Amino acid sequence: MKSFASDNYAGVLPQVMEALAAANVQHARSYGADEITARVTQQFCEAFGAQARVYFVFNGTGANVLSISSATQSFHSVLCADTSHIYCDESSAPETFTGCRFFALPANEHGKLTPEIVAERLIRPGDVHYAQPAMLSITQTTEYGTLYTPQEIRALADLCHAHGLYLHMDGSRFFNAAASLGCSLADISVGAGVDILSLGGTKAGMMFGEAVVVFNEQLAKNIAYKHKQVMQLASKTRFIAAQFGAMLQGELWRSTAQHANAMAQQLHAALSAHSAVRITRQVQANAVFAEIPRHWYEPLQQHYPFYVWKDSTHEVRLMCAWDTQPEDIAAFSTALAGMK
Amino acid sequence: MKSFASDNYAGVLPQVMEALAAANVQHARSYGADEITARVTQQFCEAFGAQARVYFVFNGTGANVLSISSATQSFHSVLCADTSHIYCDESSAPETFTGCRFFALPANEHGKLTPEIVAERLIRPGDVHYAQPAMLSITQTTEYGTLYTPQEIRALADLCHAHGLYLHMDGSRFFNAAASLGCSLADISVGAGVDILSLGGTKAGMMFGEAVVVFNEQLAKNIAYKHKQVMQLASKTRFIAAQFGAMLQGELWRSTAQHANAMAQQLHAALSAHSAVRITRQVQANAVFAEIPRHWYEPLQQHYPFYVWKDSTHEVRLMCAWDTQPEDIAAFSTALAGMK
Amino acid sequence: MKSFASDNYAGVLPQVMEALAAANVQHARSYGADEITARVTQQFCEAFGAQARVYFVFNGTGANVLSISSATQSFHSVLCADTSHIYCDESSAPETFTGCRFFALPANEHGKLTPEIVAERLIRPGDVHYAQPAMLSITQTTEYGTLYTPQEIRALADLCHAHGLYLHMDGSRFFNAAASLGCSLADISVGAGVDILSLGGTKAGMMFGEAVVVFNEQLAKNIAYKHKQVMQLASKTRFIAAQFGAMLQGELWRSTAQHANAMAQQLHAALSAHSAVRITRQVQANAVFAEIPRHWYEPLQQHYPFYVWKDSTHEVRLMCAWDTQPEDIAAFSTALAGMK
Amino acid sequence: MKSFASDNYAGVLPQVMEALAAANVQHARSYGADEITARVTQQFCEAFGAQARVYFVFNGTGANVLSISSATQSFHSVLCADTSHIYCDESSAPETFTGCRFFALPANEHGKLTPEIVAERLIRPGDVHYAQPAMLSITQTTEYGTLYTPQEIRALADLCHAHGLYLHMDGSRFFNAAASLGCSLADISVGAGVDILSLGGTKAGMMFGEAVVVFNEQLAKNIAYKHKQVMQLASKTRFIAAQFGAMLQGELWRSTAQHANAMAQQLHAALSAHSAVRITRQVQANAVFAEIPRHWYEPLQQHYPFYVWKDSTHEVRLMCAWDTQPEDIAAFSTALAGMK
Repeated sequence: MKSFASDNYAGVLPQVMEALAAANVQHARSYGADEITARVTQQFCEAFGAQARVYFVFNGTGANVLSISSATQSFHSVLCADTSHIYCDESSAPETFTGCRFFALPANEHGKLTPEIVAERLIRPGDVHYAQPAMLSITQTTEYGTLYTPQEIRALADLCHAHGLYLHMDGSRFFNAAASLGCSLADISVGAGVDILSLGGTKAGMMFGEAVVVFNEQLAKNIAYKHKQVMQLASKTRFIAAQFGAMLQGELWRSTAQHANAMAQQLHAALSAHSAVRITRQVQANAVFAEIPRHWYEPLQQHYPFYVWKDSTHEVRLMCAWDTQPEDIAAFSTALAGMK
Repeated sequence: MKSFASDNYAGVLPQVMEALAAANVQHARSYGADEITARVTQQFCEAFGAQARVYFVFNGTGANVLSISSATQSFHSVLCADTSHIYCDESSAPETFTGCRFFALPANEHGKLTPEIVAERLIRPGDVHYAQPAMLSITQTTEYGTLYTPQEIRALADLCHAHGLYLHMDGSRFFNAAASLGCSLADISVGAGVDILSLGGTKAGMMFGEAVVVFNEQLAKNIAYKHKQVMQLASKTRFIAAQFGAMLQGELWRSTAQHANAMAQQLHAALSAHSAVRITRQVQANAVFAEIPRHWYEPLQQHYPFYVWKDSTHEVRLMCAWDTQPEDIAAFSTALAGMK
Repeated sequence: MKSFASDNYAGVLPQVMEALAAANVQHARSYGADEITARVTQQFCEAFGAQARVYFVFNGTGANVLSISSATQSFHSVLCADTSHIYCDESSAPETFTGCRFFALPANEHGKLTPEIVAERLIRPGDVHYAQPAMLSITQTTEYGTLYTPQEIRALADLCHAHGLYLHMDGSRFFNAAASLGCSLADISVGAGVDILSLGGTKAGMMFGEAVVVFNEQLAKNIAYKHKQVMQLASKTRFIAAQFGAMLQGELWRSTAQHANAMAQQLHAALSAHSAVRITRQVQANAVFAEIPRHWYEPLQQHYPFYVWKDSTHEVRLMCAWDTQPEDIAAFSTALAGMK
Repeated sequence: MKSFASDNYAGVLPQVMEALAAANVQHARSYGADEITARVTQQFCEAFGAQARVYFVFNGTGANVLSISSATQSFHSVLCADTSHIYCDESSAPETFTGCRFFALPANEHGKLTPEIVAERLIRPGDVHYAQPAMLSITQTTEYGTLYTPQEIRALADLCHAHGLYLHMDGSRFFNAAASLGCSLADISVGAGVDILSLGGTKAGMMFGEAVVVFNEQLAKNIAYKHKQVMQLASKTRFIAAQFGAMLQGELWRSTAQHANAMAQQLHAALSAHSAVRITRQVQANAVFAEIPRHWYEPLQQHYPFYVWKDSTHEVRLMCAWDTQPEDIAAFSTALAGMK
């Protein structure tokens, strides 16, 4: 099956498989005290700056919850987009673990938050009756496959810092963003004022594993304790580190993400060619959103699974992955052409 | 480095690596809806009985917290041994996620709980001021490398069930136990009255991954929701399932655990040969506990890392893994012989 | 000072003070096992029906959190109005204690939820990634001082029950609602499908104390344990019970709430008389909302404190209490008349 | 009924009732912004020093949980005696709200902890796998009615501070302790190194209400937010403050506590007179513990309710309250004399 359902349907990059095999020798200290983890940590410092600290975790929800817990106490609130993964797709894990209130802000048509939107909730400072905002969480790429530019991130970071909030970036598709923007990993994180980053590995072509990258030393103070407590500290950490080592080596992440993004452009073109289809979001990374006739769902999904994003408007989401091939797009185009 | 520090210092079984490679083809549905997960789930049912339900998780703390959360509400308490991993080595993850009180019971010299010990805490039923016991958690093999026999488990299970408690087994080294006892996986779990099992894969030779196996349908009611909420639901679940598939295939777990257990017996013999050493616990699986002169710590650990269990009595723990070799034991014996 | 800031600025009804004095004799069993609590519990059954179960608590946040915890597990979500006290004014107490997600729904112009609004969030049943809705919480009277009719409550209850949700009513001003509607306490609670009620005493003229009244026996199963756990079980419970005894005796609550409601109508009239004032919400109980010129804030608040509800539109809230007097309104009218 | 079951069976001191009546005039700002609260806060500063900060709460569990939450994050542990109220009688409220682990230490025969006992758990600093101790909680008077001297408290405080822990005192019967020791309130709290105090009012003769008194400014930083969040912020705070005002006025607390303590001495004498009775704990405040024949339970409890502390040894607890009278002791003595 080749699917457009999610980039987490794809398997593992061959280079990552090789790195896993290479890491599987001898004994290694557990819980991250091993040499591979040390070496890959150094690669992170090269990519994000010497002050970056990295904590390897298992999955995206773990990365987000760890990031949020590093900045919050239980009387705090977290601001996020009403469309965000952390608000819509991670159960109540964030609340259960942190005790915080999550205030959802109305994302704009691009699935993004702006300083104007955020400022609306920066109210009642010092009021004990109101869960005090301590963090803003934004998603890069957004849930609509769109991008925050470095300038947009900086504007949000400045607003946050002026009001005593930290800025978290949920970057489960962060590599796709940097590849699309043609910038470095640092440019849209530490360089733009982000305090802590959930850096996604799984959807980018790893087997499992994400990284929490901390830029603000305030957030690093107790995070090692929370890393364990949030059930995200792997005993054989070397096998997460080694995968990220492969991703960072020679910017493998960039070429694979560029490929996935390019496939999305081809998919965009294929869909745009059909008069019954309306592209609903800017295609800036590896996702394509489109309104298609509802009676197409079933025949198309039989061979090319995808998610129905909003049934009321027939809006569907199609994702490309590192292993999506031009021939997959071509075959899908043919299928589309047959729809009426 | 060959280490006796922990079986989690070891790498991955070749058969497991092969299974991972074999699973890395095509796209697969995420979050456990894939065909490999379905197939391996079937293997679990063959091993544990048709009513068994399995949930794949990332690590041992996650498995334990998920198991406990399946049986408890926040006004409950959980009973466990004061030596247990869940009480000593998982931070406060269980409390933070479940809200429950943990009452530690004094384990006997073998690191085990008995019905007599447990009965002491089965007090004040219905008293709202007292966190009501809802679950007993025992460890197999214990933290001292000893074993609960099926009869001992049954006795605890009967006591639990008579008082409305569920019985959880923390089986991070469950395979070693079954291999040592020469019994089936079911014999010391569902067959002995266990309600829910944390089944360890990582220490047994997997790269990562454990399984929560539910035998009591009461505990299965909401566990799928908690599986996600406890941040232990892998998007590419097939890669945990495939590893367990290899472990269960032809009882690979048994031969590898038998080997580790046999190495512990050799290590036991090597240590016993030295008059300055006192073996402190029964060697029933893959751990050896011994009191050794304190000034041996440093020279020995340089080449053969191990944990100091109790510094006040010079008690150390040495673990054997699937990849411990007779020559490792021989070299260690030589080193020991040189100690004075 | 006579204030329109909040009904919780007022003191204690003389009949309540008498009841407290009368309860202060001899020794009484603690934690609600006393005779006064038994007697007043009986009064609740007379008011709400024989199946009602009552739990006395200290304050409104405690009542709401206890009510919610009775119906939820940590993977659940609770639906409430974005204007609701539980969402805006109780810090993150609900999340910290229950672990649940709170989804805020856009209240209509009257501060009320409708079945149409609620239905929007009754999505993704069975989806483990989405915090499953388990309860709807509505406020009576609403935060805008408006009322849900019995029919409106019934419609929401029917929707909830059809989707497996419980209906909670935050009734910190429930007596004002029943007095305004001219109905019984049961008519707008158990009789209209409410499953659990936070019944306010403090704002109605008690010194402290609220009651959680449970109508649905499913929610009563473990609530006694949660009552203690949520830190709301008073050792000298008789002194909360006795106050409610006075409130229920001869429907004292009705005459006092009617008075407060009548004062709000007088205040409404006084404000309406001024051309620079715009009444913004229906005056159905003891609150009056109005837009007034911003430069009036300071001179008016000097003698008659009130809350600024929404500074951007100059909307203020004025509350009447059981002890608001016609002469207070008259004096305020005079002050208003002098404003320009 | 006159009971020896608990000092929380007693009613309210007449001076406290008068203070409540006196506070019941006019309107007052809510949530502690009123003049009575300001005035009584000043009385606390006179008693405990100018740097003391006071937060009025509803009950003892609330006071303890608030105190603990002021010093802890969720990866922390709290050390307490295995006999302590917070460990045995407050459900799992502390865990649910703070997420922390509670490590119970074996109290000595007097129900007290010593530096030696505490030091046993001050292990594994910096180990992320171990819930890091952040606070020690001791009870004054202890659950056995015994006392910590200022020197004993200081020794524990010094140990705590040397290891980065805070010292909490659960003082639900703190007034009895100070009265028995003939010292000031400060002598056995701030003066002896206590960082935060749960000061009991209810058992001392108030209707309801306790106070959290903070001496260490580190713990005061966020406590106002937690005060609300832990559901312990009263809207009509003046009615708690006023009661404490009466207790502190002219040291009313001392004379009433001295009386209760004296009654316990009389009770002690009465029990000692009987050869079948064995006094089991030092009588230092208002509690008497004794082993009595089991067949006495029923006839005695019919007229003089008391708690059976430990059924296996027939140990019972008898408490005196502010309103226990010499004739109550005399009548009980007569009843005792008739037992065989």
